Amino acid sequence: MRKGFGKSCHPQKLSAAAVIPIILQAKKIAMEQRISVLTIGADDLAAMKKFYGQVLGWMAVAENKDIVFYKLNGFLLSICDRKALANFIGIDHKGNGFRSVTIGYNVDRKEEVLELYDQLKDKVKILKAPTEPPFGGLFFYFEDLEGNIIEVAQNPFITLDKNKNATDHKAIDHL
Amino acid sequence: MRKGFGKSCHPQKLSAAAVIPIILQAKKIAMEQRISVLTIGADDLAAMKKFYGQVLGWMAVAENKDIVFYKLNGFLLSICDRKALANFIGIDHKGNGFRSVTIGYNVDRKEEVLELYDQLKDKVKILKAPTEPPFGGLFFYFEDLEGNIIEVAQNPFITLDKNKNATDHKAIDHL
Repeated sequence: MRKGFGKSCHPQKLSAAAVIPIILQAKKIAMEQRISVLTIGADDLAAMKKFYGQVLGWMAVAENKDIVFYKLNGFLLSICDRKALANFIGIDHKGNGFRSVTIGYNVDRKEEVLELYDQLKDKVKILKAPTEPPFGGLFFYFEDLEGNIIEVAQNPFITLDKNKNATDHKAIDHL
Repeated sequence: MRKGFGKSCHPQKLSAAAVIPIILQAKKIAMEQRISVLTIGADDLAAMKKFYGQVLGWMAVAENKDIVFYKLNGFLLSICDRKALANFIGIDHKGNGFRSVTIGYNVDRKEEVLELYDQLKDKVKILKAPTEPPFGGLFFYFEDLEGNIIEVAQNPFITLDKNKNATDHKAIDHL
């Protein structure tokens, strides 16, 4: 999958004409550090729209019978039919168990974590009640209607700006 | 999971004192439309760090032996050990097949899609080669080292601002 890596392990003398393109290539960044759309496949799109609309209170920016888009902070969240999504990509739609992806929603104060927990606890499946981790802060985890995992957290290592965008993560190499 | 929904199907006379709190509750938005962290669980964190660092050219903002954070547009991408992540949430780490989540990276011009395809095609597993969908634009899909699915797309329905943030999705109800 990563052809060419490690091919130059043997030290050898290279001309400047050979070295310069290698340096340029090494510096080339293929993709900027940003995403435009986070897409979730749904088994029951209508029910998922109801969940994001009525439980979380989110407003769609565009939708039709196959897909819905929510405008988030600098990118879109889209929810569409799981089989259609897999078919669009050209892969098998089947899958089960832990999806190995979670979405984090951070707030400034621990009180806000508890307020959201109180608002959500009777409407969603709570995976982990509010917990103080060893590194500080407070978090809880819940599932949306189809098992996508969302964390609400106050995390002293993550910096939120005045628009609540996450702009930095403090050093953790001592942890 | 959504206790209380549908309980008020039977029409009944309610006093103003009873109605006002219901209206206020219906209007209350529990969560703002934003996320702070997108987390991916990894089987081999070191290899995944190499992939995001060397193949995509992304720079970490904070890292230690258990986790790495990349600053994206308004939120952080974190990659951490899959078992540790599941354990942190309190769920079984096992899972397989389609994760039902994809990440989209949009650009302004079709030429940029093809340029990225040329840069990536020998370094990653391509799931779908550049394709023009019926609704216009151009996209391809690839996998990261552990099967997380990333789409590169030019999509005439998605508006990118000057910072390349996705700020809108044009109407699709006619599609």
